[in-house]
Amino acid sequence: MSTLRSEARLHESVSEITRLLEKHRVLDTLTHRQEGPKRDLLEHLQHRQNLAELHAKVKTLHPADVAHVLETLPLDERLLVWQQVGTEHMGEVLIEVSDTVRESLIEQTDRQSLVSALATLDADDLAYLADAVPEDLFRDVSRLLDARERSWLQESIAYPEDRIGSLMSREVTFIREQQTIEEVLGYLRSLGELPEQTDRLFVVDARHVLRGALPLERLLLHAPGLLTSAIMDPDVRSFRPEEPAQQAANAFERYDLVSAPVIDERGKLIGRLTVDAVMDFVRLAAERRALERAGLRGEEDLFASIWDSARNRAPWLFINLLTAFFASRVIGVFEETIAGLVALATLMPIVASVGGNTGNQTIALVIRGLALDQVSGDNVRHMLLKEVTVSLVNGLMWGGMMGLFAFTIYRSLPLGLVMMSAVVLNLLVAALVGVAVPLLLHRAGRDPAQGASVLLTFTTDSMGFFLFLGLAKLFLV
Amino acid sequence: MSTLRSEARLHESVSEITRLLEKHRVLDTLTHRQEGPKRDLLEHLQHRQNLAELHAKVKTLHPADVAHVLETLPLDERLLVWQQVGTEHMGEVLIEVSDTVRESLIEQTDRQSLVSALATLDADDLAYLADAVPEDLFRDVSRLLDARERSWLQESIAYPEDRIGSLMSREVTFIREQQTIEEVLGYLRSLGELPEQTDRLFVVDARHVLRGALPLERLLLHAPGLLTSAIMDPDVRSFRPEEPAQQAANAFERYDLVSAPVIDERGKLIGRLTVDAVMDFVRLAAERRALERAGLRGEEDLFASIWDSARNRAPWLFINLLTAFFASRVIGVFEETIAGLVALATLMPIVASVGGNTGNQTIALVIRGLALDQVSGDNVRHMLLKEVTVSLVNGLMWGGMMGLFAFTIYRSLPLGLVMMSAVVLNLLVAALVGVAVPLLLHRAGRDPAQGASVLLTFTTDSMGFFLFLGLAKLFLV
Repeated sequence: MSTLRSEARLHESVSEITRLLEKHRVLDTLTHRQEGPKRDLLEHLQHRQNLAELHAKVKTLHPADVAHVLETLPLDERLLVWQQVGTEHMGEVLIEVSDTVRESLIEQTDRQSLVSALATLDADDLAYLADAVPEDLFRDVSRLLDARERSWLQESIAYPEDRIGSLMSREVTFIREQQTIEEVLGYLRSLGELPEQTDRLFVVDARHVLRGALPLERLLLHAPGLLTSAIMDPDVRSFRPEEPAQQAANAFERYDLVSAPVIDERGKLIGRLTVDAVMDFVRLAAERRALERAGLRGEEDLFASIWDSARNRAPWLFINLLTAFFASRVIGVFEETIAGLVALATLMPIVASVGGNTGNQTIALVIRGLALDQVSGDNVRHMLLKEVTVSLVNGLMWGGMMGLFAFTIYRSLPLGLVMMSAVVLNLLVAALVGVAVPLLLHRAGRDPAQGASVLLTFTTDSMGFFLFLGLAKLFLV
Repeated sequence: MSTLRSEARLHESVSEITRLLEKHRVLDTLTHRQEGPKRDLLEHLQHRQNLAELHAKVKTLHPADVAHVLETLPLDERLLVWQQVGTEHMGEVLIEVSDTVRESLIEQTDRQSLVSALATLDADDLAYLADAVPEDLFRDVSRLLDARERSWLQESIAYPEDRIGSLMSREVTFIREQQTIEEVLGYLRSLGELPEQTDRLFVVDARHVLRGALPLERLLLHAPGLLTSAIMDPDVRSFRPEEPAQQAANAFERYDLVSAPVIDERGKLIGRLTVDAVMDFVRLAAERRALERAGLRGEEDLFASIWDSARNRAPWLFINLLTAFFASRVIGVFEETIAGLVALATLMPIVASVGGNTGNQTIALVIRGLALDQVSGDNVRHMLLKEVTVSLVNGLMWGGMMGLFAFTIYRSLPLGLVMMSAVVLNLLVAALVGVAVPLLLHRAGRDPAQGASVLLTFTTDSMGFFLFLGLAKLFLV
């Protein structure tokens, strides 16, 4: 496969592939219309030629671009394109696609091709695919590795996805403190090439303990006689495999790192983190969070089957139903009050809705603060006070307007005052819940984004109805 | 400032600073309790010693860490820490903090210190701060630059934030095709050092047109007599300054780039993009999107003043009020129907709420598809069909359950059927709107995330009430 890298060319290729697939579909329909043996030879040939063109086109693409094309296609066409990828490149493509697309591809590939495909990958890439591949097949493939690679693979898959251990690579070039630049250069030439994204070499002592790092450029800029220990950085930010991956993401971003060493508990160099792995982690985590906030499981394929999608969305809908039922029962308690003044039914959704919205604003701010590590025990009180005051200001302003609206339509001053009071109180509830819920989820070791909105909306809906109808019962009916 | 880089040490420093600030607050209160000349000398001295400790502590921190500390502090303490930063490091810290914190710091710094602080920065960094600094002061500072840097600055600030031009750096090391490795090495030694995140040098011809790229490691691994043109990569992904920054983000991620050349319309090398700038862009864009989805302006400081916060959140609340008013008027039309059967008021919020939730799931999927460039004209129909079918399945399943709930509580089969039909229909509305709104916003060149949820909730609320009450009016009352 070529490595031509241009979006314009990529878009062109995608359109070309789409065109070929369209033609394939048309030919398919024609062929199927004529029964079995009567199948037209000419059309059959056209069909084959079309597939050959598709095959040729797919061959010109970079694996990352093939992955991109596969992501954009519905299931049947995705498989058709996948069949055009040779086993020698299948492995690379599997690395690049998203979890759910990967699942669909692996399901549809025969065992023999999968083994050949996976055999082209190194231990790092295999570790990345470990969860997606059937266990027995994975065992077969890992037997093809040499002993060192296999033991690395075992260690690597033992770390959960959100730990640095699952992101680190074993491709790390290390040198010794006592080597001269000249010796280092000789060693590098004997290696022939360096791993991708090598901006510096890591320096270890005789016991393989990390002593420092040597940026490549220093090798170029200094006299060949100098000792490594004289020109290395002795102060290197290193990571431990069991640390959270988010910590690496923060450090890479804050200190503009390209690569960093991973060490074990005795300080020995065991692997390397690179900025591309960290970037992938950051993007996947952000994507997952965005979907989870809408109540979708980690990854849902845009073209997943109807049944998978319905099942994927069911738990959230069920929770939503339970909270809606509860809110509905809160209203049910006040049915008599509503029967006495139907205007209440008309106005009550406003109180609930405005509470949910302001609460979600607070939640968004607190979640960002938590993600950026800006929230500490010391400033929580300060933040809570601020959110409550902002709610009070907004409540008086907008609640006043809503009260005026209620008064104008129904010509009842008490109704207007009840409306205003309910809005002010519900905004205070929203501020308290909006600060408390993400903080409590965070403290309980959960993702504060996940579930915060449900809990909030549940509270602001129920309390909105309760406050408004309760006040109305006391003062109006 | 030192460059010690460890989160543990950072957290220690933050606690230490918090402790000193706490002490400062206590001393402040004590000092203020005693009037003017009676002020206790001892306490005054303690106060000064405390500040000196704070000053010493701040001096040991990396600028990025000082920035982090400033982000976590309420306004008054933030300024106290800021005053401990020397003008020689103020510039670097200003680069690292968020927009709103930067604003608060610049407001409180005297002109003379600001000029000295900014004078320590290069043209790239100044361009980044251009929007935050008062115009006349910025002019004064840019006069301190040499002519080439000044003209770069002018060009750079002309690009909007979301263009590659605003991310690119002028620090680019280039070499010639005809140079030998030896000559290149000599040239690099004469430079003394390379810009940060230099993983390769860019190769240009006599007219400064980009011809290729030479990874640093090849300089180390090849014989000194070879020509640059013999060992360079001729096929380099390059960018134009007017292209969207998101395009660079996609390419850096897909092809694991560390740096890339920026060229003008004639192919001449004019600058360089590095992975740290791209990562910053990705993170800021994601953060902004998350806040904007909750209706907050790009960046709100966790400790912004009450008034700023209330104003920041007002536009969204106002839109929310308008849509809530509209939904309320939809209910108003059916007041007679509700008066005839109060159970309707109790059940109607369920229909609206479940529609909003499923619609938001669809929106989240479509927005992700758009962000990953997976949605094209060809598959929109397919996607729409899928979402509508999933809605139908979910509608029948959960709508059936809700119908059963209504029937159980109110012992009315027709009410149960109306409930179920309204849920099914509203879920279909949610699927259609959930697919259409982000697509239309995207096609209109807007951010699909911004506003999509408001429009959706507006539709599912109003239609939910309308469908449920309308069906009830036809069949029940």
